[in-house]
Amino acid sequence: MNDIVNCVAYQSGRRLLDIDLNNVHAVLSEPDKFVWIGLYEPSEEILSAVQAEFGLHDLAIEDAHRAHQRPKLEVYGDSIFIVVRTAHMNKDAHIELGETHFFVGVNFIVSVRHGSSVAYKEVRSRCESTPDLLALGPGFVLYAIIDFIVDRYFPVVNELELQLVALEERIFKDKPNRQTTEHIYQLKRELLEVKRAVSPLIDICNRLMRLDKRSISSQTLPYFRDIYDHAVRLNDMVDNTRELLNTALEANFSLISISQNDTSKRFAGWAAILAVPTMIAGFYGMNFKFMPELQWEYGYYAVIIFTISACILLYYFFRRSGWL
Amino acid sequence: MNDIVNCVAYQSGRRLLDIDLNNVHAVLSEPDKFVWIGLYEPSEEILSAVQAEFGLHDLAIEDAHRAHQRPKLEVYGDSIFIVVRTAHMNKDAHIELGETHFFVGVNFIVSVRHGSSVAYKEVRSRCESTPDLLALGPGFVLYAIIDFIVDRYFPVVNELELQLVALEERIFKDKPNRQTTEHIYQLKRELLEVKRAVSPLIDICNRLMRLDKRSISSQTLPYFRDIYDHAVRLNDMVDNTRELLNTALEANFSLISISQNDTSKRFAGWAAILAVPTMIAGFYGMNFKFMPELQWEYGYYAVIIFTISACILLYYFFRRSGWL
Amino acid sequence: MNDIVNCVAYQSGRRLLDIDLNNVHAVLSEPDKFVWIGLYEPSEEILSAVQAEFGLHDLAIEDAHRAHQRPKLEVYGDSIFIVVRTAHMNKDAHIELGETHFFVGVNFIVSVRHGSSVAYKEVRSRCESTPDLLALGPGFVLYAIIDFIVDRYFPVVNELELQLVALEERIFKDKPNRQTTEHIYQLKRELLEVKRAVSPLIDICNRLMRLDKRSISSQTLPYFRDIYDHAVRLNDMVDNTRELLNTALEANFSLISISQNDTSKRFAGWAAILAVPTMIAGFYGMNFKFMPELQWEYGYYAVIIFTISACILLYYFFRRSGWL
Amino acid sequence: MNDIVNCVAYQSGRRLLDIDLNNVHAVLSEPDKFVWIGLYEPSEEILSAVQAEFGLHDLAIEDAHRAHQRPKLEVYGDSIFIVVRTAHMNKDAHIELGETHFFVGVNFIVSVRHGSSVAYKEVRSRCESTPDLLALGPGFVLYAIIDFIVDRYFPVVNELELQLVALEERIFKDKPNRQTTEHIYQLKRELLEVKRAVSPLIDICNRLMRLDKRSISSQTLPYFRDIYDHAVRLNDMVDNTRELLNTALEANFSLISISQNDTSKRFAGWAAILAVPTMIAGFYGMNFKFMPELQWEYGYYAVIIFTISACILLYYFFRRSGWL
Amino acid sequence: MNDIVNCVAYQSGRRLLDIDLNNVHAVLSEPDKFVWIGLYEPSEEILSAVQAEFGLHDLAIEDAHRAHQRPKLEVYGDSIFIVVRTAHMNKDAHIELGETHFFVGVNFIVSVRHGSSVAYKEVRSRCESTPDLLALGPGFVLYAIIDFIVDRYFPVVNELELQLVALEERIFKDKPNRQTTEHIYQLKRELLEVKRAVSPLIDICNRLMRLDKRSISSQTLPYFRDIYDHAVRLNDMVDNTRELLNTALEANFSLISISQNDTSKRFAGWAAILAVPTMIAGFYGMNFKFMPELQWEYGYYAVIIFTISACILLYYFFRRSGWL
Repeated sequence: MNDIVNCVAYQSGRRLLDIDLNNVHAVLSEPDKFVWIGLYEPSEEILSAVQAEFGLHDLAIEDAHRAHQRPKLEVYGDSIFIVVRTAHMNKDAHIELGETHFFVGVNFIVSVRHGSSVAYKEVRSRCESTPDLLALGPGFVLYAIIDFIVDRYFPVVNELELQLVALEERIFKDKPNRQTTEHIYQLKRELLEVKRAVSPLIDICNRLMRLDKRSISSQTLPYFRDIYDHAVRLNDMVDNTRELLNTALEANFSLISISQNDTSKRFAGWAAILAVPTMIAGFYGMNFKFMPELQWEYGYYAVIIFTISACILLYYFFRRSGWL
Repeated sequence: MNDIVNCVAYQSGRRLLDIDLNNVHAVLSEPDKFVWIGLYEPSEEILSAVQAEFGLHDLAIEDAHRAHQRPKLEVYGDSIFIVVRTAHMNKDAHIELGETHFFVGVNFIVSVRHGSSVAYKEVRSRCESTPDLLALGPGFVLYAIIDFIVDRYFPVVNELELQLVALEERIFKDKPNRQTTEHIYQLKRELLEVKRAVSPLIDICNRLMRLDKRSISSQTLPYFRDIYDHAVRLNDMVDNTRELLNTALEANFSLISISQNDTSKRFAGWAAILAVPTMIAGFYGMNFKFMPELQWEYGYYAVIIFTISACILLYYFFRRSGWL
Repeated sequence: MNDIVNCVAYQSGRRLLDIDLNNVHAVLSEPDKFVWIGLYEPSEEILSAVQAEFGLHDLAIEDAHRAHQRPKLEVYGDSIFIVVRTAHMNKDAHIELGETHFFVGVNFIVSVRHGSSVAYKEVRSRCESTPDLLALGPGFVLYAIIDFIVDRYFPVVNELELQLVALEERIFKDKPNRQTTEHIYQLKRELLEVKRAVSPLIDICNRLMRLDKRSISSQTLPYFRDIYDHAVRLNDMVDNTRELLNTALEANFSLISISQNDTSKRFAGWAAILAVPTMIAGFYGMNFKFMPELQWEYGYYAVIIFTISACILLYYFFRRSGWL
Repeated sequence: MNDIVNCVAYQSGRRLLDIDLNNVHAVLSEPDKFVWIGLYEPSEEILSAVQAEFGLHDLAIEDAHRAHQRPKLEVYGDSIFIVVRTAHMNKDAHIELGETHFFVGVNFIVSVRHGSSVAYKEVRSRCESTPDLLALGPGFVLYAIIDFIVDRYFPVVNELELQLVALEERIFKDKPNRQTTEHIYQLKRELLEVKRAVSPLIDICNRLMRLDKRSISSQTLPYFRDIYDHAVRLNDMVDNTRELLNTALEANFSLISISQNDTSKRFAGWAAILAVPTMIAGFYGMNFKFMPELQWEYGYYAVIIFTISACILLYYFFRRSGWL
Repeated sequence: MNDIVNCVAYQSGRRLLDIDLNNVHAVLSEPDKFVWIGLYEPSEEILSAVQAEFGLHDLAIEDAHRAHQRPKLEVYGDSIFIVVRTAHMNKDAHIELGETHFFVGVNFIVSVRHGSSVAYKEVRSRCESTPDLLALGPGFVLYAIIDFIVDRYFPVVNELELQLVALEERIFKDKPNRQTTEHIYQLKRELLEVKRAVSPLIDICNRLMRLDKRSISSQTLPYFRDIYDHAVRLNDMVDNTRELLNTALEANFSLISISQNDTSKRFAGWAAILAVPTMIAGFYGMNFKFMPELQWEYGYYAVIIFTISACILLYYFFRRSGWL
């Protein structure tokens, strides 16, 4: 049963004891106690045991087993089922998403982690260090974990903002190239992924702030407003980056066109410079019987000097008008 | 009367008997029973019989006959009329849409299939295997069928997502071509079709979740929330794919421009390389009387070597600056 | 007074008699009767007579006279004033819009047609053939006419959808040309026109469905829901076509660019093929004293053969790389 | 004190007498009377006098003095403060915007005009000609002036629509040029200006229609619905023109690209035609000893004829393929 | 303790005395008094002292310490916590943003400034000069400071509008260049920054206008409506500038294309003019034995004159057709 990460009973905000999943009902019969259970990709049997213990709804258990849910909050009688997506950057600076599900009741909270994500030991020890707050019950634990999850989105979104700054650098400083365009597209893809994970959080927190359930102590409501605020900020940052990215894509496109124009001008300039000697040489290649210059002893040198001068002149002329 | 696929009476969640459409009223007079009728593109006579039996509204019967309705939910007194669109991918990976209409009352549910779609035998046998749930009445049958329909959208939307991935591959790896652009357009068309079929489902489920009608048992409401959730997820997936597709279209366009720029540069480069020997040859084609090189025994060979060297030099120069 | 198309009194859904506008009050004094008056671009005098007869508001009469209103529903005490736009395709496949205004009271309905549109004789005879429904009063007549008007939008929107399909054909099959772009623009213009006519209908029907007025029998409300549904479907079709048209415009633009790229490549290819003989000829036009090939008897023919071979080789090379 | 345009007392809808601003309180003490004051860019002293007379709020007076407000409606106790923007086309077909502010109370209305705009003498005389309506009090005067203002927007928006039609003509008929693009931009700017002036009017009228204040007689409410309707229509026209303009900008862009493609093709065609004689001439400029054609008496003429024929042939070929 | 900028007690709108943070409770025990404290980037200790004094919530204090919050309003029991962003233009015409937080209670207001911003001494002295208004309590002080902050946004947004005008000048008058595109992008970035700071203000003021708390006197509500109005106007200005900027970006792009077209035409024109002498010279470079012109004494001069004439002719021809 190593997919049960932890199963601890608390009383008045203080850790009571580690218990076995099957003894939970004994603990819960006493008032002022609650159980906090942490699972990681649990087997169907464990989920069934949890369901039996706390009387959870079939559909919620099914969701918790299958994972790949969108973030949501569902109320089943006195207990709540919550799905939240987690995110972190992997070593290649790409986003990896995981999922955490919560069952929250009057005297229990079960967290179910799926996929790539960090364990919540840190949250547990932090909670245990503030017994006054932990005494608020499962609602505070819920807050603590979601807060932890949301805080870990900030470095992810910051990284995406930095990638945009790097892209701007490449767009405005480098020559236009295929990689920049592809990178813009990939960044857009990742922004949309984060957006899909973050934006439902706003609605979830909003509903948590207004929830009138015994399982969530009214004193924890300002805490959910705090997460709500962070979720809105993350969402704003993502929207902002997305709008800038769209503009960057268009700016990039303008610069590609300008660069194409420059290519055309440069080509035209050099074509003109090369056309002049060809034309002059062609002229003195004519076979007219009477062409006085041809007889002149220094004609050849004069033509060479004239041609080179004409080319240099043209070069400066084009340079000045910005064609070369 | 082979357009009546099935007509079965149920009591307390258990199959009672197959009955004739005309005997339905006899069965319905007893409490705790309901009838589940499945039709496929029924004739006007059958629909009239159904209408007479259950006292349905003219307008709903008219809609059920004509088909080509948009997904909707309409309440007529105690009974509900629902239109849902079904979808599956055909062999050419193109979407085919069908329609299913439902009449749901306190003790009956009639499903009317139109166009290309799968029969609901599988749903019936699945329902019959959970008599506890089927005992919830017609509302649960309605859930079971709509759930079945919505679940079949996922492979369709996944296929569209895969087509987008394939398109990305072609956009960023292949040379720009007309087929890619046309494919982007076709994918957009199919996404819009799915969108039109899926997005009204959100509203329908939302209303089903809140419906206070005797025909839908209150215990089935969480089930409709489950479908609601799937519909929202499908809708999100479609919106996401659409937004990425728009960006892909623009990225494609940028790459076409870059590719055009590359063509121009390559052309300019080769033009320059070819212009040099032409110019040199022109020079030594001049008819000046005094051109010392012309008299030189190895002049011709020197010029050939010089010209070839110049061309090679230019080639490496252009190569380095990325023009060739 | 030929701008009064019709003025008929009904009792219990049955045609009673054609009456003169000035005798209307006599008829209306008896209960269970109503008058249905059809006008076509009426003069100010007629409208004043109607106003006096039914006690209508100045502003509504002014609107009915001036026409060029946007679709709207206005409640003045017990009577309602409705403006709806009508549409049909003329012979050149261009949209022609008209207007119909309605004054609906407890025992009267006045329809005022403006501009190009079809008379409502057909609606009248259809209504008279279902006296049960016509007995519902002016509200049902209102439904029957608006339903007739909305139904006539479907061929118009279908025509626009077909024009889009034809445009797609031209975009993806033909060479890019100015006419296609202009046609896209014109189609957009017509879509916007239909949109402006159709989308306010959704709101009007929505309000009619909820209206609690004596002039609209509560039994007619499901009928307005039916029109509402059609209006939403029309609106969806128009929005869909518009979004596809926008994508078509962008796809068209991509294809123009690809086509430009093809032009550049083809030009570059032929330029290269033509440059080779010019260069070779230039070389053998040099006047060096010692050029052994020039003395060779078959030199000329050898050069011709070599040049032609080089050109053919280049041709196949460019062909294979897709430049020609 | 020539910034007081007018200050007149009315009783039962009839003009009573012109009064001095300082005697207003005497008039207002009698019931059934109201005062209508028109100001034009008043000095601070006058505004203070008005404020003292009618007990207006500091902030409203400050706004009325500073002008450059956005259209709005603010309720201060029993009186209302309204800001509306006025518009007309100047001689150069550019929009000029002004502002009119209103203070409306139970027995007074003060209008304050700012900037370029027409005086409301015409409105006053029109009102005085319908004493029945004017008897409705300051609310009706408010309606009359706003109606006058809104009506003057129609020629402005029509002018902008005509400018769009003229632009379409230039886009689809003329060669692409910088002026067209600049004109599109300027038109967009003006549309946004009108939009900003018109769209808040919808909200203002909407609130006026629902206002439950003694200063606005309930009988005037349908009149505000009339203005509301006009404002919505103006707003629709502006939105429509804006969306068409966006499409026009993109169509313009497509046509620029097509035109560029045409330039490239035409250039390529002529380049090919000119390259042929150059190539042929180059060939017969070769110095091979044995070139039989050179010895032939009519060789020169044959070459000329051949060259010209080749050029003509090419010309017809390019013409047929649409390159020239 | 130099991070306490000011700490003053007021009674009935008049300055009473400067007090020490630790004596605040003594002052507050008397009715009709309030304290106005100004902090600048306070240390944790000071914030703790403030928290203890006024009984503020942990989360609000944490926010006030960490800064980098989005603008928001949060109600904790009787006190309110508000975050507002401040802005000013630095010397390089770039925006610098700061933050000000407020804790407002029945008899206290604490402002906490962060980052680059102006001190509120000016506001304090302005408030003290209108004791009648200051007597309204902390709510009026809140208004005065936010009004001051919002007023300082106007020059910032005006500057951005001017930058847009300057950009228009460059787009429509100058040649297309990379700097213009980059500048458009930067302007967009700054507009989004201002937008993010300003648009939440609308919601904050809206809620302040409707707030039913003892800490905000009902007489100050119209004042918050005034700020609301300014915030809406700022937001409109930013949105307007953004929409114009988007159009400017597209117009810029069109002009780049037109300019590219011009480059192509000019190049084609000059290429044609240079091709003519080359072709003619090539012709007379042919080695036919019988070419009568070659023998003609003035042939050479005739050819020169003919060539120059042809070039001049071509030049005028291209000039007229707008290619040069």
